[in-house]
Amino acid sequence: MKNILIIGAGRSTTACIKYCLKQAEKKGWFVTVADSNPKLAESKIDGHPNGRGTWLDVTKPNDRREIIGRHDIVVSLLPAHLHLMVAQDCIKLKKHLVTASYVSHEMYRLGDEARDASLIFMGEMGLDPGIDHMSAMKLLDEIKEEGGTITAFRSYAGGLIAPESDDNPWHYKFTWNPRNVVLAGQGTAQYMEDGGYKYIPYSRLFDEYHLVDVPEMGEYEAYANRDSLLYRDIYGVAGIPNILRATLRHRGFCDAWHALVKIGLTDGSYPILDADKLTYHEWMNAYLPKGPGSVKDRMAKFLGEDPESEVMTKLEWLGLFRKKKINLPNATPALILEHLLLDKWKLSADDKDMIIMQHEIEFTDKDKVNKKVTSSMILKGEDQDNTAMSKLVGLPLGIFTKLITENRIHTTGVNIPVMKEVYEPVLEELEEYGVIFKEKTELI
Amino acid sequence: MKNILIIGAGRSTTACIKYCLKQAEKKGWFVTVADSNPKLAESKIDGHPNGRGTWLDVTKPNDRREIIGRHDIVVSLLPAHLHLMVAQDCIKLKKHLVTASYVSHEMYRLGDEARDASLIFMGEMGLDPGIDHMSAMKLLDEIKEEGGTITAFRSYAGGLIAPESDDNPWHYKFTWNPRNVVLAGQGTAQYMEDGGYKYIPYSRLFDEYHLVDVPEMGEYEAYANRDSLLYRDIYGVAGIPNILRATLRHRGFCDAWHALVKIGLTDGSYPILDADKLTYHEWMNAYLPKGPGSVKDRMAKFLGEDPESEVMTKLEWLGLFRKKKINLPNATPALILEHLLLDKWKLSADDKDMIIMQHEIEFTDKDKVNKKVTSSMILKGEDQDNTAMSKLVGLPLGIFTKLITENRIHTTGVNIPVMKEVYEPVLEELEEYGVIFKEKTELI
Repeated sequence: MKNILIIGAGRSTTACIKYCLKQAEKKGWFVTVADSNPKLAESKIDGHPNGRGTWLDVTKPNDRREIIGRHDIVVSLLPAHLHLMVAQDCIKLKKHLVTASYVSHEMYRLGDEARDASLIFMGEMGLDPGIDHMSAMKLLDEIKEEGGTITAFRSYAGGLIAPESDDNPWHYKFTWNPRNVVLAGQGTAQYMEDGGYKYIPYSRLFDEYHLVDVPEMGEYEAYANRDSLLYRDIYGVAGIPNILRATLRHRGFCDAWHALVKIGLTDGSYPILDADKLTYHEWMNAYLPKGPGSVKDRMAKFLGEDPESEVMTKLEWLGLFRKKKINLPNATPALILEHLLLDKWKLSADDKDMIIMQHEIEFTDKDKVNKKVTSSMILKGEDQDNTAMSKLVGLPLGIFTKLITENRIHTTGVNIPVMKEVYEPVLEELEEYGVIFKEKTELI
Repeated sequence: MKNILIIGAGRSTTACIKYCLKQAEKKGWFVTVADSNPKLAESKIDGHPNGRGTWLDVTKPNDRREIIGRHDIVVSLLPAHLHLMVAQDCIKLKKHLVTASYVSHEMYRLGDEARDASLIFMGEMGLDPGIDHMSAMKLLDEIKEEGGTITAFRSYAGGLIAPESDDNPWHYKFTWNPRNVVLAGQGTAQYMEDGGYKYIPYSRLFDEYHLVDVPEMGEYEAYANRDSLLYRDIYGVAGIPNILRATLRHRGFCDAWHALVKIGLTDGSYPILDADKLTYHEWMNAYLPKGPGSVKDRMAKFLGEDPESEVMTKLEWLGLFRKKKINLPNATPALILEHLLLDKWKLSADDKDMIIMQHEIEFTDKDKVNKKVTSSMILKGEDQDNTAMSKLVGLPLGIFTKLITENRIHTTGVNIPVMKEVYEPVLEELEEYGVIFKEKTELI
């Protein structure tokens, strides 16, 4: 019998817990869900005979070690900064660990210890990062095995709203951590183009998007992720002249988000004084040079927009020019914006989200013919609770956990899912859940 | 006899040490200059009978405490982050402390302990911060004492190159910490205008400068400092509807610096990979969208400039389009820029720097007449070594130290120089060194 410990029972954990309980039934596992809110943990188990919800304050070392010690595999669905202490306990107590978060430098440093103990610590095992790595590696390995030389790798992913639920001028709703959406892209995006490095600072990231054609869906806007260069070695394409990872948004999003960045509304580094007394209207005025005209007209002028332009329509729809109190004492601009968007970009009960993932790989095949393969996956959610996002983050975690229990994983140490023994069975099973990449190859 | 300990003998310490040695002769002090480079410390004493240069590694607690224990007053000319440990020793050993650095939150927290021990810890006792506080407070107090109500306080300061030594297209040379010049303004500038808060994010700070007329000198560009709001309480003008602290630059500087910011060259947060192999030309290309034309032409287009414009001339003069190796492995953009500027903006042996400081205060006098007083100070240096900058940073430290030895300071605790018992005698003595504020009052 295998004992699985899932730490964290928050909003994004449902799909993973459901999957594990289903497997538990078939395979005789026992699944413990531990959370600081035991009622929430119990509700996720929903009386299942192979599961139990329990209380855990993960910052209490003794409690944490006691519960980890009684299980075989730990799935940590905690916020990213809390994984490390769980990982350290897993080393001591000789338990495997699975997470969907980016693997930190500190986590990578545990690699030797995990390997020495024959443990697998698998990170980035969700959707993005997760399914993106696995589907990309499958394509890259296939091309290489057929004698191809890869010259360009571009990978796009977006957590979007499905067209049938798209009813606001931004064509966007929150289907994932709102804070991360507000702060997305801060820093400098780094990628490679035609053999040279490319840098785009945050201040012009959303101004310098490009268009990507998604088969059967049309054109989307893509802005560069910060980290494209990091994956050259790990994807086995170290000398590649073109590599880009980017985020997809509906048409019109980037210009309007660029306006928010330019005004200064995504800055989380200082508090707005008296933000409890100010109105949104007064707040916007604080960013504008003096001059005649209404705040809205001066904003349009400042942004180089017509007052009735699409960008201005989006800003106005957010309520940025309303004489309504902000009511958030000493909040940063980013937090004020997040609160405003939480209200405006909320999924309704029946709203369906939509995940798009697309890889575009250029290569020269063994006969020296230049080709491009485009591999696209589109999946829609069911409703507000059963989003495609939560499904695609949770299922890979569950499937990989099952692979461990079946002794099908021989990799040890700290890893992300780029090896065939991982991506083949995970992608295969994901197809049963509608995760189907359609490939199209053309001559270039 | 008073024993003065000066910690730090770096480039900016000469004026302070010279002043203290002169006083030592008159008043029978003994001055110890301690530095990790004892030869440098000795060279600053230059055989003076009332002084001694000695070795000190300030990070070694026992050595630090031993030397502090043998003196009465400590002048710390260390980098700002090293003051705190010196201050903690000064509390224990009951010594006064003087610095020219901004007072940190941690330092302010020592206030009660310093006050209980009847000690004065004076920070921001240089030029800017330092002379700006003192000269501003003198004006503000005078207006208030005459029954005036202050409605606007705007304060400008710049460390510039004197017109007779101004021989480059930027009209700027380094007279102070180059790193601070490169990173200046990062964050969001905050000030007040017409009773409302104003915010300018870094990405548009150098684009939204305004012009300031300096009597007898002409117009200068002024960009807002980050911190104007901080001084409302400490200057005793808490409810003031207009407050701004800003930095002065020669005409043409801000547009060109804004271009560097927009390209992304002032970012110190990530390393440029292969910066040892790249040329400046390739580096610039990495920031530009693809397209036809030379890197310089594409840069001009990207910046919305004519290729022969003043901004482009400045960038070209820096050598940003040259096919010359950068040769700085994994340096950040900010560090590469700093190295380039160090070479280009170096003071020649006979170059004279120039300090401009100007306060503009609007008030309603006791007869309800609206007035504006403009108070300006201009001081030029002698040469590369004897800069106005180092003189105006060092002299207030020395003068204030003398005031302590004369028992003329009754303030205790952690402070900045805003009280009359400090600013009156310091400003009076500074006049002997050419620090003369000329006032002009007009009706508005």
